[in-house]
Amino acid sequence: MAGKIPTSPLAPAAFPDLPVIDGVRFATAEAGVRYQGRRDVMLAMLDAGSSVAGVFTRSKTRSANVLDCQAKVGGDASEGAAIIVNSGNSNAFTGRAGDGSVSAICEAVAGATGLPATRVFTSSTGVIGERLPHDRIIAKVDELIAAQDGGKIEEAALAIMTTDTFPKGASATVELPGGTVKIAGIAKGSGMIAPDMATMLVYIFTDAKVERSALQAMLSALTDVTFNCITVDSDTSTSDTLLMGATGASGVEVTAESTAFIEALRGVMLDLSHQVVKDGEGATKFVEVHVSGAASDADARTHAMAIANSPLIKTAIAGEDPNWGRVVMAIGKSGAAADRDLLTIRFGDILVAENGWVSPDYREEQGAAVMKEQEINISVDLGLGGGTATVWTCDLTHGYISINADYRS
Amino acid sequence: MAGKIPTSPLAPAAFPDLPVIDGVRFATAEAGVRYQGRRDVMLAMLDAGSSVAGVFTRSKTRSANVLDCQAKVGGDASEGAAIIVNSGNSNAFTGRAGDGSVSAICEAVAGATGLPATRVFTSSTGVIGERLPHDRIIAKVDELIAAQDGGKIEEAALAIMTTDTFPKGASATVELPGGTVKIAGIAKGSGMIAPDMATMLVYIFTDAKVERSALQAMLSALTDVTFNCITVDSDTSTSDTLLMGATGASGVEVTAESTAFIEALRGVMLDLSHQVVKDGEGATKFVEVHVSGAASDADARTHAMAIANSPLIKTAIAGEDPNWGRVVMAIGKSGAAADRDLLTIRFGDILVAENGWVSPDYREEQGAAVMKEQEINISVDLGLGGGTATVWTCDLTHGYISINADYRS
Repeated sequence: MAGKIPTSPLAPAAFPDLPVIDGVRFATAEAGVRYQGRRDVMLAMLDAGSSVAGVFTRSKTRSANVLDCQAKVGGDASEGAAIIVNSGNSNAFTGRAGDGSVSAICEAVAGATGLPATRVFTSSTGVIGERLPHDRIIAKVDELIAAQDGGKIEEAALAIMTTDTFPKGASATVELPGGTVKIAGIAKGSGMIAPDMATMLVYIFTDAKVERSALQAMLSALTDVTFNCITVDSDTSTSDTLLMGATGASGVEVTAESTAFIEALRGVMLDLSHQVVKDGEGATKFVEVHVSGAASDADARTHAMAIANSPLIKTAIAGEDPNWGRVVMAIGKSGAAADRDLLTIRFGDILVAENGWVSPDYREEQGAAVMKEQEINISVDLGLGGGTATVWTCDLTHGYISINADYRS
Repeated sequence: MAGKIPTSPLAPAAFPDLPVIDGVRFATAEAGVRYQGRRDVMLAMLDAGSSVAGVFTRSKTRSANVLDCQAKVGGDASEGAAIIVNSGNSNAFTGRAGDGSVSAICEAVAGATGLPATRVFTSSTGVIGERLPHDRIIAKVDELIAAQDGGKIEEAALAIMTTDTFPKGASATVELPGGTVKIAGIAKGSGMIAPDMATMLVYIFTDAKVERSALQAMLSALTDVTFNCITVDSDTSTSDTLLMGATGASGVEVTAESTAFIEALRGVMLDLSHQVVKDGEGATKFVEVHVSGAASDADARTHAMAIANSPLIKTAIAGEDPNWGRVVMAIGKSGAAADRDLLTIRFGDILVAENGWVSPDYREEQGAAVMKEQEINISVDLGLGGGTATVWTCDLTHGYISINADYRS
């Protein structure tokens, strides 16, 4: 399926060189859950003493795997942990059978590794509503355990892909007073987020030693300014999952006050979140929307998301049309406070509109030149207060329609 | 511009025969605001004693015309009223110049008709952010006044079109204890609603005698279950306007208790609102979404709109793919109460999913057959309470992308 979709024009030139994170090992296998001739299951094994934190979809129809991870993620990590992920089938909306599949996989991994089942986390991504053939995954558990290797993170990034057109990875190395720590993460996802195959899954690892509640607090706070600030099509998966494991293998302690670490983690999460947008279904442009001068940060976010989700703005960007009237429209409809005559709108560095009208110095050719770029910045100042927000999206093209109108059948 | 877009496959075979409404007359003219070689300005003249009520966009960046109409619509109607509408230029986001254009047109019509300017209502629809050449409209006022005729309502429906691919009209005749009254209305709009050219404008007339506050109450309540229940693309115009005039020429009084009249008016408004969806940009399918069993009517509406606005559902419908998993996704993301395992989903009469999973009797061919129809019904029962809602939308096709990505430039 993935092979039919051309690689996004916004894809990076190559998968990045990710550092080995001591205390975590990866393995992949061909389980044949749905795809043939490719690796479709990934295992990540975390050493004893690792902390695990997680952030999950808010969907009220979330999958059995998500419900199970949520129940487990607050638990004690002293015994280590396993994360096992399959692509091709999401195990979402599969009734009680879905819960049974999760239990069966967790028990199998627990039995083969000696971990308690409460330390086995699962994710599934792929078609919705079809029974997960979990026996095919379980049949590969011994092979996965035998194959685990700290250097196989790129293999892991490839195994979790569905409609993704490129594997996604990012990393950082942080010098702290106590020594050097490393962070490496992988992600998959190409809608925000199509429920059939394009759930967003993210796994991040560090060899820093981080107490669980501090790790959870960092991850939750940073998700709000990274993964929760991207949108491809305003749709939300039943299965979105972000898990982070801190192995502590570096012996370097990190606390909630370690701003250098937090900043580095923010960078990794932002990079991965931007890669998800850049693999947005049919995307040809990467768009940053920055809103300032709003009555509050929440209002700024409401305006920014109204702009980023507007089909009319996204199609205008696809057409390289500097259609600032549609930005005025989106601000008007968002529901957050706005005064027509105090708005300032910029495309890139070009002042387009101010004082309730097009800027007297603006010429259409200037806006058109900005729109021809592959990365586009739209900024709006409301002129009301100090609220700001930045979100990221892509354009809405014929490619999105082709992928989604012709997909499952 | 309209000529380049092929007529919607959902268009009615012909414009309906609308009855003459005593007490209102129409005229149109070629003012050349933007379009050449077609009528682009419409005047409707209402006799003294008419009541006028209105409902307007909630956009915070609404146009000068909307602000002016809102200020006037509560006023005394004893002297009659005029409604003058141009297509081609929306006079939205045109700063103080926009207010000046509205005043100039109102003064000109007032001067030529003897009406006070407070009884002249204007609407403008078309490109946003360009100064309205109101002199071209004013130059036609005498010609319009001379040409007015009760039989020219179809001409009026044609003159207000922008990206519309067909003119929209609907009517009803109601037998009441006091005699017969007639209702006739026209509308334009083909997005919900594109701000450049596809604002929704609706004008409805009746010869019933209806006190203004009763007329306003009826119109507001019925808008909530008709025009506020349609969506093409979730975008909202800066200029949406619905005006209704009751001339009283029949001598038949209608009050807030006249259920037969209210039901007939609801029918006219529903018909016009459905025609707007059927002229949705790129639409090839007309979709009714019915939600029941929700915790409240408000929750039901939230779910229904999440389904109707989901790009993934709309593209699946375009692809004739019975992708019920995307319906589960939309319910999950809507934010309103839902229980995955209590959902029931039907496509047409076909039971697709229940008890948190696909129905054991469902076969994909059944859903596929429903999706091949031109009019499709999606129903969801939440199994939680008595809340219901029905909304209408269209599919999301390559046509929408083509129209909106290539439009203005």
